[in-house]
Amino acid sequence: MEMIKNKKITSRDVDFAKWYTDIVRNANLASYSSTKGCIVFEPYSYAIWENMQKTLDGMFKKTGHCNVYMPMFIPESLLKKEGEHVEGFAPEVAWVTHGGSNQLEERLCVRPTSETLFCEYYANKITSYRDLPKLCNQWCSVVRWEKETRPFLRTREFLWQEGHTAHATQEEAEKETYKMLNVYKKFFEEYLAIPVVVGKKTEKEKFAGAEYTLTVEALMYNGVSLQSATSHYFGQKFSKPFNVSFMNKENKLEYAYQTSWGCTSRMIGALIMVHSDDNGLVLPPKIAPNQVVIVPIKNDENVLKVCKNIKTELSRKKIRCFIDDSDKTAGFKFAEHEMHGVPVRIEVGPRDLQNGVVTIARRDTLEKTQIKISESANYVKHLLTEIQKDMFNKAKKHNDERTYVCNTLDEVRNVLATKPGFIKAMWCGDKECELKMKEINGLKSRCIPFEEEHLYDHCVVCGKPAKHMVYWGVQY
Amino acid sequence: MEMIKNKKITSRDVDFAKWYTDIVRNANLASYSSTKGCIVFEPYSYAIWENMQKTLDGMFKKTGHCNVYMPMFIPESLLKKEGEHVEGFAPEVAWVTHGGSNQLEERLCVRPTSETLFCEYYANKITSYRDLPKLCNQWCSVVRWEKETRPFLRTREFLWQEGHTAHATQEEAEKETYKMLNVYKKFFEEYLAIPVVVGKKTEKEKFAGAEYTLTVEALMYNGVSLQSATSHYFGQKFSKPFNVSFMNKENKLEYAYQTSWGCTSRMIGALIMVHSDDNGLVLPPKIAPNQVVIVPIKNDENVLKVCKNIKTELSRKKIRCFIDDSDKTAGFKFAEHEMHGVPVRIEVGPRDLQNGVVTIARRDTLEKTQIKISESANYVKHLLTEIQKDMFNKAKKHNDERTYVCNTLDEVRNVLATKPGFIKAMWCGDKECELKMKEINGLKSRCIPFEEEHLYDHCVVCGKPAKHMVYWGVQY
Repeated sequence: MEMIKNKKITSRDVDFAKWYTDIVRNANLASYSSTKGCIVFEPYSYAIWENMQKTLDGMFKKTGHCNVYMPMFIPESLLKKEGEHVEGFAPEVAWVTHGGSNQLEERLCVRPTSETLFCEYYANKITSYRDLPKLCNQWCSVVRWEKETRPFLRTREFLWQEGHTAHATQEEAEKETYKMLNVYKKFFEEYLAIPVVVGKKTEKEKFAGAEYTLTVEALMYNGVSLQSATSHYFGQKFSKPFNVSFMNKENKLEYAYQTSWGCTSRMIGALIMVHSDDNGLVLPPKIAPNQVVIVPIKNDENVLKVCKNIKTELSRKKIRCFIDDSDKTAGFKFAEHEMHGVPVRIEVGPRDLQNGVVTIARRDTLEKTQIKISESANYVKHLLTEIQKDMFNKAKKHNDERTYVCNTLDEVRNVLATKPGFIKAMWCGDKECELKMKEINGLKSRCIPFEEEHLYDHCVVCGKPAKHMVYWGVQY
Repeated sequence: MEMIKNKKITSRDVDFAKWYTDIVRNANLASYSSTKGCIVFEPYSYAIWENMQKTLDGMFKKTGHCNVYMPMFIPESLLKKEGEHVEGFAPEVAWVTHGGSNQLEERLCVRPTSETLFCEYYANKITSYRDLPKLCNQWCSVVRWEKETRPFLRTREFLWQEGHTAHATQEEAEKETYKMLNVYKKFFEEYLAIPVVVGKKTEKEKFAGAEYTLTVEALMYNGVSLQSATSHYFGQKFSKPFNVSFMNKENKLEYAYQTSWGCTSRMIGALIMVHSDDNGLVLPPKIAPNQVVIVPIKNDENVLKVCKNIKTELSRKKIRCFIDDSDKTAGFKFAEHEMHGVPVRIEVGPRDLQNGVVTIARRDTLEKTQIKISESANYVKHLLTEIQKDMFNKAKKHNDERTYVCNTLDEVRNVLATKPGFIKAMWCGDKECELKMKEINGLKSRCIPFEEEHLYDHCVVCGKPAKHMVYWGVQY
């Protein structure tokens, strides 16, 4: 067993980047194809994605949204309708120029995001305030022609959802922007067991075309920050060029107020980088494809019968579980299921059976306990809840330890040189100072948190009076 | 109410094509964007698609398949690896030539289907017979640069699933090909209430690169045939050029045996063309986004209270239902929900309440019944099952009436000139005769049914000895 582990995985404290790719490969999450910069989502990562989708989709529908599907192509002229938007995206889109052997009259980009198509659709569908709000979401893949790629974190094509809404009033649209950010926060904290910081992006970091962008920021094990989901308030910045207008209650023509919000398959990367360890993936029970694996130590009839009984009981409690009765050795199976991050393993051995017990191992702590067979299902149900909670708390503790208040640039440099993490520091509001921060290891503003603290009076960069408290971090 | 209907929908017996587009528009199924040849799947058609997906996905998983996601781009060199395949698809693919402002070294096509990527993936993943079978499926959109398009039936981009499997033996792969065809047949008949003919495609009509293709063929209300799902047996035709090989049990290198199978959002078009009528969509209960709409005839307190109670009872029985308490007139609501094909409408009026009854209308027959409030939920549950069954039987009866045996080309011409449908006729097996049939209104062989009948001895076209009984039809 040790041999298998050592052979396959670099320690995350030795080489985090290599550890990451080792996990991706050995847990069968993704592989490469001859399509450069893209990945194959293998069955295991896709099953994680399906669980994420199912949960989020339920949350979106509960908040009144429905799904649609827009074309994957956007004519160049449509993409160009809103100036800031096209400036932000045009440099990184893929262009279709030919259909079969014919050159197209107008080239089409493969959607990098679908604001333009939703605006066109809404412009056609909305005439009166009675048609509002429009609350739509789309699950699809999008393309951005990145130069450097990393599985799940940055690939030329990735999976995501994009919500697009139109409202009759600014107030309602802004409420939606915040509401959806809170849906993401809840999803990250309660399902992915990832604690997050929520706040507003600076002008420099906001979405191309937005009035403002709200963001969910997470901290990885190595202290790097990951922008994990965003929610944008557009005001009328898109509705004017796209003519998304309606007759309001006073019978006056008005432009709609819009939002968009999204999260991506990058969340799979976050699960790896926040929770996993040198034995492989560690998955929170709520999102794990299999929550429990039952391993017969010997494939004899009595042992298998007990395995099946336990499986039946667990399934009755709606716990996702399976029996691994393949002909591999027990040690090999243990290592394999640890690699895949199955939250709980139940070992059923002939000797244990004589004592009426089974051994239960939790993946997050690797602790083992012996439990009476008759109590095992209830124990496991309780244990899954505990693991989910403990994983969140462990990540939260790590974040707290790795969140620093810095008063000077020297303090900032010192943090990044030792144990990087979130840096809380005051800022004057000038883009110039953001650019100077970037000179230190590419540090970027993550967000101005909703709950700002007054740490001190001056900007950490220029010393002028501070306007905001900002979370800073090195980003993926 | 009459006014609304007459204004909006062309009669299907007057102009079937216009009736079809009227339904698509008025039931808010699809709309156009500036991306030519593609449609926007609006919330209502996407909700139908989600129900189809959920059901099929469950069936695929029950038969041991798991989902993956492959890149949407295929490098030209990869597409070209199998000769027949590229010949079949290259004329109709969209080509990406630029990423941002840079020309690509090799152009990429947007996937028209993903055999090539699955083969490459399997070649990387399979080394031994122990790695087989591989049973993967993918939900995605694909692109084929069609010249003439029709919503749901033929668009440049459409939604689909594509299963791709690899097996250690020919027998197992062929079994899979038939098994998945039967999954489709079951789905069409039991969920979509669409009776189908199943069989094998002729050489001329098989998939580009397959050994043979099995197909599910459905007959529309106007007598036109629709290829509705296909399952392909590849043998080793892909595994050889793509080197999908494995060490078999005898420790010899062998090429894998492969299959693929798929169905598309065209099924939404089939639902329209088989079941719907001059009042709008008619949806089978198992696939309808809403199975029941409860309409308060007057929005007074007592009426709404009864509506809510009925809704609670129906929801408890897992029936998808909603109350339409908008401020539109009852007549307007009736027409609107008929247009959307909601299978059952419950009308709750103040006068009925005095008698302790509600009025229940079924969409398929437009029949109305009065039922005691206390019995309404049970009645509706039973009624939904009955509607599902009756819709299938009605379509079956139509198919039977519209299926003809033809002995001569004159008989064939006569059928197509009067009431077109499926034509059963004998065939010698020559492509030449298929091409001659095509001269008659574009008639194509649909399939050689699994259960062939010996209708007579000679080929309907050339008079030579017949080899097969073939279903022929004019296709969409």
